Amino acid sequence: MKFNIIHKDPKTKARTGRVETDHGDILTPIFMPVGTAGSVKAVHQRELVDDIQAQIILGNTYHLYLRPGLEILEKAGGLHKFNGWSGPLLTDSGGFQVFSLEENRKITEEGVMFRSHIDGSKHHFTPENVMDIQRIIGADIIMAFDECTPYPADYDYAKQSMERTHRWLNRCINRFGATQGKYGYNQTLFPIVQGSVYKDLRKQSAEFIASCEMEGNAIGGLSVGEPAEVMYEMTDLITDILPIDKPRYLMGVGTPTNILEGIALGIDMFDCVMPTRNARNGMLFTSEGIINIRNEKWKDDFSPLDPALAGYASNFYSKAYLRHLIISKEMLGAQIASIHNLSFYLWLVAEAREKIASGDFSAWKDAMVKKTSMRR
Amino acid sequence: MKFNIIHKDPKTKARTGRVETDHGDILTPIFMPVGTAGSVKAVHQRELVDDIQAQIILGNTYHLYLRPGLEILEKAGGLHKFNGWSGPLLTDSGGFQVFSLEENRKITEEGVMFRSHIDGSKHHFTPENVMDIQRIIGADIIMAFDECTPYPADYDYAKQSMERTHRWLNRCINRFGATQGKYGYNQTLFPIVQGSVYKDLRKQSAEFIASCEMEGNAIGGLSVGEPAEVMYEMTDLITDILPIDKPRYLMGVGTPTNILEGIALGIDMFDCVMPTRNARNGMLFTSEGIINIRNEKWKDDFSPLDPALAGYASNFYSKAYLRHLIISKEMLGAQIASIHNLSFYLWLVAEAREKIASGDFSAWKDAMVKKTSMRR
Repeated sequence: MKFNIIHKDPKTKARTGRVETDHGDILTPIFMPVGTAGSVKAVHQRELVDDIQAQIILGNTYHLYLRPGLEILEKAGGLHKFNGWSGPLLTDSGGFQVFSLEENRKITEEGVMFRSHIDGSKHHFTPENVMDIQRIIGADIIMAFDECTPYPADYDYAKQSMERTHRWLNRCINRFGATQGKYGYNQTLFPIVQGSVYKDLRKQSAEFIASCEMEGNAIGGLSVGEPAEVMYEMTDLITDILPIDKPRYLMGVGTPTNILEGIALGIDMFDCVMPTRNARNGMLFTSEGIINIRNEKWKDDFSPLDPALAGYASNFYSKAYLRHLIISKEMLGAQIASIHNLSFYLWLVAEAREKIASGDFSAWKDAMVKKTSMRR
Repeated sequence: MKFNIIHKDPKTKARTGRVETDHGDILTPIFMPVGTAGSVKAVHQRELVDDIQAQIILGNTYHLYLRPGLEILEKAGGLHKFNGWSGPLLTDSGGFQVFSLEENRKITEEGVMFRSHIDGSKHHFTPENVMDIQRIIGADIIMAFDECTPYPADYDYAKQSMERTHRWLNRCINRFGATQGKYGYNQTLFPIVQGSVYKDLRKQSAEFIASCEMEGNAIGGLSVGEPAEVMYEMTDLITDILPIDKPRYLMGVGTPTNILEGIALGIDMFDCVMPTRNARNGMLFTSEGIINIRNEKWKDDFSPLDPALAGYASNFYSKAYLRHLIISKEMLGAQIASIHNLSFYLWLVAEAREKIASGDFSAWKDAMVKKTSMRR
């Protein structure tokens, strides 16, 4: 994997760049649609390419490991071949899901024992086998096995959790270095900064992660319930420490505002289920603000969802029709809203790239934060 | 509306033809995807055109009347404008749905009082207002308000029900003739043959319907639980009576076999929820037979769903991937299977048209019935 910075914003830490993978290039800053179980919910693969203009999508190791399982994924030749998405892919480590199983998992130094949410069967994730699993799934970018420290966490727990994440990272790096991709293309491993909302822990973690000299770095454990200001403060602190010449991925973030502020703080990659999950509930992100399509006021608004965007869904379908579909629980409603919201997120980062390139990012960002967070 | 017969099969009553409407032509025999509440479930409008190659779709008056309601449909300029389907449209009369409400409806000579399944509100359908409602929805082909006589029905009930349907038809024709389309294009009214499984009633009904001299005719009250042989016997009897130079629509039918046999008996138009409903349960119709995609045997079959068909879904996605999606209850599974099954139905009638044109229909039909009804 290669990363080149193309433009730097003069007033903020924002930058544009290009990540090169064996499955194609990614222009940053970028938002990555989440394809939990090998499918971005309600969205066809060609819609990701043609309408949403996604450049990289995510898969979830926990879900894919349980279903369809490694045997089938390996037989298929990896997730790209299995689901037909031929661009860059990133998988999380499964850590976030297994830790959140609560009653059904036990953490030891070795790893996490857990029971499947599907059939109650017992499984064990360790830093080593999570590397092996992600080798088999075959994503271009794979993530270290960490604990996404919950919020709030007291200082002692946050410290212990971070230190275990660091010890696990060493094991991940060793296993990753001792193995190879299974399908003839390169994979790269991103380590993850933890440390909850404690500045000294975040600093310590960022320094440790930086010292690992991997090809890209991630920030985890944010956007988990803490105030947005705290998230920005931690991000700002961390991006001052992480190497400037490597891509930085802020995991699980966020709202359009979070993304714009993250870009200003030097973040290059984002992912979040919000655009698709909220779509299914009838919440639309648009270039003119947020719409609850279930509201009475849209019932006879026959204008397109958002003509400022390029895709089919945003231009072909009207607000009144989408409102009808969502209220009638028609699947097409979730489909249209999902394509639309993802189109909006990809449009937003594309606009940000343009504004960084032209040197107008800072003022545009402030105006855009205001505009896109307004309720229409 | 115009109808021209293009080819006649020498050995059966099958024929090909062209129905001309103000929203475009329909080549017959044709299958019409069902768009219950203004959406063919899980299918985008452009997929109906590009992948499925649908020529005409259905809407359900009962559902559309309740949601989004007539005020919005009229403001939109009719259903075509509302949902963006610009080809020919057919609406049923709502009779089938309101009669099936059972506990929540009361039938009188005047019409049917019923309660909405959505909010319990009270409504009244009469032959007259059902014509007005379908004028507002704005379908190209609208259906008479009838009772789809349930099966089994004793002779006396079947006769009374048929006679009421005939009296209601006179009222439909009067109202239809006294009103005009609301959006500047023509609408046409199809009457419906009833009479349950009684030959003399079916004969009497078909003669009455034929005497109305409408532009097309429909057969209702079949495929409601009676043996397939009885359905074919009734259809055969009726198509001998209905005028040869008008399109004939066999309502709510059916399996691929039912459609092929119906074509042989001189039917031109079909509709059924089976391809979409069964798709959502993982049952696929293919050119090589029927697949239950949930079966273990497909788990590592990475071949496309059905390369004999032209559309995206049937060629791009593999059986193993679709199996995974259906088992994981991912919406994309229902989407893929729905496009695929509708593509198959449209492929089947297109093949039938070709075989009728080339004079090879009869032998092809027998082989195809065998092939497409086999479980793979």
